[in-house]
Amino acid sequence: MVTLRDLEAALATALETAGRGHRGANPLVGACILDQDGNLIATGYHLGAGHPHAEVDALRRLGTLNSATARTLTMVVTLEPCNHTGRTGPCAKAIADAGIGTVYYAVSDNTAASGGAQYLRSRGITTHRLDDDAAARALNHRWFLSKKQQRPFITVKLAQSLDARINAPDGTSQWITSEQSRNHAHGLRSRVDGILVGTTTALFDNPRLSARTKDGQLHSKQPYRLVMGHRELPSTLDLIRGDDWEQIKTHDVHEVIQRANELGLAHLLIEGGATVASAFIEADLADELYCYQAPLLIGAGSSSVNLPTTTLSQAHRYRLDTASNDSLTRLGEDIMLHLEPLPRA
Amino acid sequence: MVTLRDLEAALATALETAGRGHRGANPLVGACILDQDGNLIATGYHLGAGHPHAEVDALRRLGTLNSATARTLTMVVTLEPCNHTGRTGPCAKAIADAGIGTVYYAVSDNTAASGGAQYLRSRGITTHRLDDDAAARALNHRWFLSKKQQRPFITVKLAQSLDARINAPDGTSQWITSEQSRNHAHGLRSRVDGILVGTTTALFDNPRLSARTKDGQLHSKQPYRLVMGHRELPSTLDLIRGDDWEQIKTHDVHEVIQRANELGLAHLLIEGGATVASAFIEADLADELYCYQAPLLIGAGSSSVNLPTTTLSQAHRYRLDTASNDSLTRLGEDIMLHLEPLPRA
Repeated sequence: MVTLRDLEAALATALETAGRGHRGANPLVGACILDQDGNLIATGYHLGAGHPHAEVDALRRLGTLNSATARTLTMVVTLEPCNHTGRTGPCAKAIADAGIGTVYYAVSDNTAASGGAQYLRSRGITTHRLDDDAAARALNHRWFLSKKQQRPFITVKLAQSLDARINAPDGTSQWITSEQSRNHAHGLRSRVDGILVGTTTALFDNPRLSARTKDGQLHSKQPYRLVMGHRELPSTLDLIRGDDWEQIKTHDVHEVIQRANELGLAHLLIEGGATVASAFIEADLADELYCYQAPLLIGAGSSSVNLPTTTLSQAHRYRLDTASNDSLTRLGEDIMLHLEPLPRA
Repeated sequence: MVTLRDLEAALATALETAGRGHRGANPLVGACILDQDGNLIATGYHLGAGHPHAEVDALRRLGTLNSATARTLTMVVTLEPCNHTGRTGPCAKAIADAGIGTVYYAVSDNTAASGGAQYLRSRGITTHRLDDDAAARALNHRWFLSKKQQRPFITVKLAQSLDARINAPDGTSQWITSEQSRNHAHGLRSRVDGILVGTTTALFDNPRLSARTKDGQLHSKQPYRLVMGHRELPSTLDLIRGDDWEQIKTHDVHEVIQRANELGLAHLLIEGGATVASAFIEADLADELYCYQAPLLIGAGSSSVNLPTTTLSQAHRYRLDTASNDSLTRLGEDIMLHLEPLPRA
């Protein structure tokens, strides 16, 4: 018999397993499968958009089952199984096809992918929502908000010195962060749908905004490149090569989001500069921050973030995203913090 | 028989053990004791000024020995045993009195405590310096520099937001960092001989500069309180209570150091504000940094460090002090970095 205690332990394991993935176009999700005595026999997680969902990942690890055995199994998932064919097929159908007898999930899906629980019940599977879903909700609180606000999930990258400078007064800034940090940031680029920079960054740094491996090869998935601002971009800029880019002539972050939605960009990475990053932070549109810090004190030059704050209570508060496995990491000589905004009370 | 390989392994262990202590008035030191077959039978380390030295700590863990056994033992120390009676007795004598047969040490002591090896030999103990002392030298590279420069070991504390602000534009700054960070900083205060602040910090924040426990009790050791700068200090200031304080009417860090030397302060903590901390950093007098970061973006207000840098190559470079066991730590919601300046090439 599977006890309530077994279910609680399975949910805790599923939450921890979920942290191995990356939040973005899709939420973090973890799944566990228990046998009829409540023993954990498989776990699964969702690595990120384009990869198998957690339920399918867990089922895959089980191997082939006969239907009598499958019927005795219980799946515990941090999020209601999807009922939606996106880059992968619907999980509810995969669970039903595998013949699993019972499903518990923590958080209801109220997005376009909802309806999984209802579908499972229609296929004769005992399906319940777990009562205590606070941790599972916290796991994706900003992702749910981005869906509610009908906009991309937004990642802001800050790369700075210990004293939060992004350059010296004469503009020198190249290689503030380590090679390992830059490789990590390229991994981030390879997971998003679009990258945004301001015209100043485009003109001054002339970035390619491509996602490259350590060896300089292009990742299989490349982000769409967006430049925000009014200044003219010369055709010699590196990011202008190819068709997958455009300039959005605005200083309004909401116009950028509208255009990202039109383009179907579900995960947007804000690469800077400080003005663009600050505009998204100030508008409470930064769903997560990656803050790369190089161990140096520059002592002058531009700050990574500038906000119209006058008093401390207006500061934007975050927490280490400890649901993810990368919340505080050394990258060569650098450190990296992965943060999320504190949920509203 | 004790092989070269045993000695190398013992030195590595001694170096790792050394990291459990705190550098300051005294260096980090670790010691291992090997039996006649090269087996590790005890380790010791120096917690910090006023605590037993590593060699004595290791001997103490051995318990009582008969002289025949003691004679077969080998001690491996990261630093030449001291020959100096300070807050504790000389280690060279303690080792000889314990009857240890052989001593290997990595780095020669060229400070006032030198002469330990010579003393050991005079007592008939086989004593050698190990050839490969690079790691043992790196362990205390800034401590050796401070001794060479005949000045206190200097710790600079920075407490800032993620964007390196220490207040908002209206001056609000209280409790930027977490309770755990503040407790940690009080531990730091309890280990130093003197604390320095500038007059602006003294006047504006009115700190007590006492070292207090989590419960608000005074630590047994309290630092001498120094205020640097010319502005008049009203007698109502909290730090002025008692006799253990003085104002040094200068903006010159070298005058502060001269006075600290006269006062016999072997470990000085620079608590700020930004101008005072920056002056020590700019003069390359910060032997270590503790950088407390609260997970918030203020976006405006004063920076933790201001230097006359114009180009990136002038930046001050550090590395996580990974010889210490506290180089990257979570303190409640905060993170703390313990850094040391990169050694000169």
